[in-house]
Amino acid sequence: MKPLFEQDLKVVNVGLQGFATNIAAAGGQVTHLSWSPPAGADAALGWMLAGMTGEPRIEEANRAAYERYLGAQPRLVDFVLARDAIPALAERRILHSGPPIAWRDMCGPQQGAICGAILYEGWAGSLEAAEKLAASGAVALAPCHAHGAVGPMAGIISPSMPVWVVENTAAGNRAFCNVNEGLGKVLRFGANAPEVLERLRWLGTEFFATMQAAVRGLADADLKPLMAQALHMGDELHNRNAAASGLMFKRLALALLGSKLDGGAIGRALAFVAGNDHFFLNLSMAACKSMMDAAHGVPGSSLVTVMARNGVNFGIRLSGTGDRWFQAPANPVDGLYFPGYTIEDAAADLGDSAITETSGLGGFAMAASPAIVQFVGGTPADATANSRRMLSITLGSNPAFTLPALNFGGTPAGIDARLVVDSGILPIINTGIAHKKAGVGQIGAGITSAPMACFNLALAALGDALAGRGR
Amino acid sequence: MKPLFEQDLKVVNVGLQGFATNIAAAGGQVTHLSWSPPAGADAALGWMLAGMTGEPRIEEANRAAYERYLGAQPRLVDFVLARDAIPALAERRILHSGPPIAWRDMCGPQQGAICGAILYEGWAGSLEAAEKLAASGAVALAPCHAHGAVGPMAGIISPSMPVWVVENTAAGNRAFCNVNEGLGKVLRFGANAPEVLERLRWLGTEFFATMQAAVRGLADADLKPLMAQALHMGDELHNRNAAASGLMFKRLALALLGSKLDGGAIGRALAFVAGNDHFFLNLSMAACKSMMDAAHGVPGSSLVTVMARNGVNFGIRLSGTGDRWFQAPANPVDGLYFPGYTIEDAAADLGDSAITETSGLGGFAMAASPAIVQFVGGTPADATANSRRMLSITLGSNPAFTLPALNFGGTPAGIDARLVVDSGILPIINTGIAHKKAGVGQIGAGITSAPMACFNLALAALGDALAGRGR
Repeated sequence: MKPLFEQDLKVVNVGLQGFATNIAAAGGQVTHLSWSPPAGADAALGWMLAGMTGEPRIEEANRAAYERYLGAQPRLVDFVLARDAIPALAERRILHSGPPIAWRDMCGPQQGAICGAILYEGWAGSLEAAEKLAASGAVALAPCHAHGAVGPMAGIISPSMPVWVVENTAAGNRAFCNVNEGLGKVLRFGANAPEVLERLRWLGTEFFATMQAAVRGLADADLKPLMAQALHMGDELHNRNAAASGLMFKRLALALLGSKLDGGAIGRALAFVAGNDHFFLNLSMAACKSMMDAAHGVPGSSLVTVMARNGVNFGIRLSGTGDRWFQAPANPVDGLYFPGYTIEDAAADLGDSAITETSGLGGFAMAASPAIVQFVGGTPADATANSRRMLSITLGSNPAFTLPALNFGGTPAGIDARLVVDSGILPIINTGIAHKKAGVGQIGAGITSAPMACFNLALAALGDALAGRGR
Repeated sequence: MKPLFEQDLKVVNVGLQGFATNIAAAGGQVTHLSWSPPAGADAALGWMLAGMTGEPRIEEANRAAYERYLGAQPRLVDFVLARDAIPALAERRILHSGPPIAWRDMCGPQQGAICGAILYEGWAGSLEAAEKLAASGAVALAPCHAHGAVGPMAGIISPSMPVWVVENTAAGNRAFCNVNEGLGKVLRFGANAPEVLERLRWLGTEFFATMQAAVRGLADADLKPLMAQALHMGDELHNRNAAASGLMFKRLALALLGSKLDGGAIGRALAFVAGNDHFFLNLSMAACKSMMDAAHGVPGSSLVTVMARNGVNFGIRLSGTGDRWFQAPANPVDGLYFPGYTIEDAAADLGDSAITETSGLGGFAMAASPAIVQFVGGTPADATANSRRMLSITLGSNPAFTLPALNFGGTPAGIDARLVVDSGILPIINTGIAHKKAGVGQIGAGITSAPMACFNLALAALGDALAGRGR
């Protein structure tokens, strides 16, 4: 031991910063490594995690699920009314974002949007009547995700709204998403004023007929190459869709130029698409949903196939635990607020759009999108670091979606719940921020993360399932 | 001196690497700084440069010229036949890229393109007759730059070809560029086969009439904000114009949707635009020409306002030396060659498209465009380093054109010939590579640089002008 004490100390400190600070203050040389115990130091969960790490059944299931994700080929095959695509909407039912939630527990924007949808459907004649109807339970509510669908923010899909139909042609499964209404006063932020309903009615009639012809006349309906190209043009396909929207506009315009439809209707429909740089978000979400649904339902897999928020709770699903949701209170969003607003005004994290991160896009692909930091905060270096960090919690990287700033490495993809619990690194999500009151609209954008408790719960359930225990 | 010799040597070596290598080989500690004498160690030029560094008349002239460049507001104001925009084309004249050059001295692609233009104009009935006519001197030749115009590669503009008209609305000066024909067999690479002329005829008739209506009906014709947006979408606006072309397509399509023109003609014109990701290059060039012409003609200014190549010589102009060209043999292009071709097959550096670099775009804005390295070679880190390096030879950076990867710093802009000669750092240029034989077309793309001799000659001429001497 003697030689050790005669040398100058060179210390590596792991974990608590305090020890390192004291050594440095005493003039010692110290390198601090940030580390925290796996499973949040929960001994029972830690033991379970240890048993699941490298577990052959999980490894095999994840390989299968991940390959189905990688092999998915999303194609925009149709544009139809929701009731014609989603059997559950043959009844008086409204779909919403996030995990299941009762009317009385919903956040302001989601309640406001449901009232708007009730008026849009003509099930009530006034806002008061709509609210009463919703509260009475006479309108069934269900998560979009329970019916192969996704919706941004409030995520409202009612029977007469048109939805994009994206098919994963590799497996034949289909996913649905509503139409992006643009910014300002829109249903997805809980607005339900007459002009909001007016726009919805136009989207469901003239726009619907025109775009259906466009979609059915597309020369190229494959979305994966378009999304890959957009990643090379500064999009991350969640909060930045300017390039993808432009590429899609080109395809839709060319399809419509050959059609026999009324020129005025074509002009109005294309002007609407051209004027909304978030237009592609809803197509990106449907494409991602079709890719993740392909990977869902592999027994034993710890792959996360859904992350979604209803403005109250954040919920996830694993491929290997079927349709069970694992929930925790949704986090607030740290971001850039529009002038006059602060985090005090914000609804908690809201919407199904985190399906993009679940698929390796959005926050996971931020390295593709240095310009997005002007919208969500931070620096371009942070954006690149975020993509790198997500590699620690994913099963791999997707060679179909390459990131120029990471020397054309694939985007981190396929969140493994085990890696999240082990490393304590949470999936990051780029997201818009809604005002907590219905109808005010978007008040900012920023970065948030999934709550750790979701992953702990999911992993415990997966462990029980593998051990043949029910909970 | 004694303490010096008793210490371990810590050497900083400046200039020749050999000394450093020897010290390192002998076990010494050495830091090598790459450096070479200013003005290429030409003593006379070096003295002149020293006299011009910080010279108040040059500083004042450069400030004025640079401000005019920064203040320029390029707007796409019209689309007309070249003879209606450029007075010199009222006669039997053809404009070409680069500095002035006689028919017999031209490179293969430029001769081939001129023959094609003669056939297009109907001045001869066969290729042989066209070649004879050109050789006879009966068709006048002049550089595009001599007439407010620019053209990529061979840069051919003949009287009946349509040209984009871009006006710098801040000063009223106008610039012109021809239409990008797409890739493959095209006039600008020297091809003159029947299908090339057929396309030119369509561009000069149906496409011309349709696009003229589109341009005249544009709701937003300002190009600077569009270019700034494209820089945030992965373009550098010389060899990568995918985003800008898409943004322009959107504007043109919306303008045409309101028109009373034939639907078939609109469909064909828009399909042509949509199918060419280089479509915007020629608009980018005209916009850059209008910005640099604004800065041209300030007596005493060492700002470079033109860099252009005719496939034989590279020529530059300074703001302060009027219409004089300073020329040197054009460099070959180091790049990625298409399968089956090597640098042996390549024409020397060709075209007016280096007007983009002269304006701070193209190679200077490579940090905006990491994906371009797949086209011109290198890594995304090289692309960023190129933009940083160009800051050493420019008067500043353009706050209107920001680069996300450089934390939203402006693109380096306003090449000062003094800084080039002083530092030995040459302006880099992203460029396409033409086959040296007429008609083969593009065989690659890569990065090249302006030859130093141009800047030495230009600086000497500026020095003479300031000293009241003629040369």
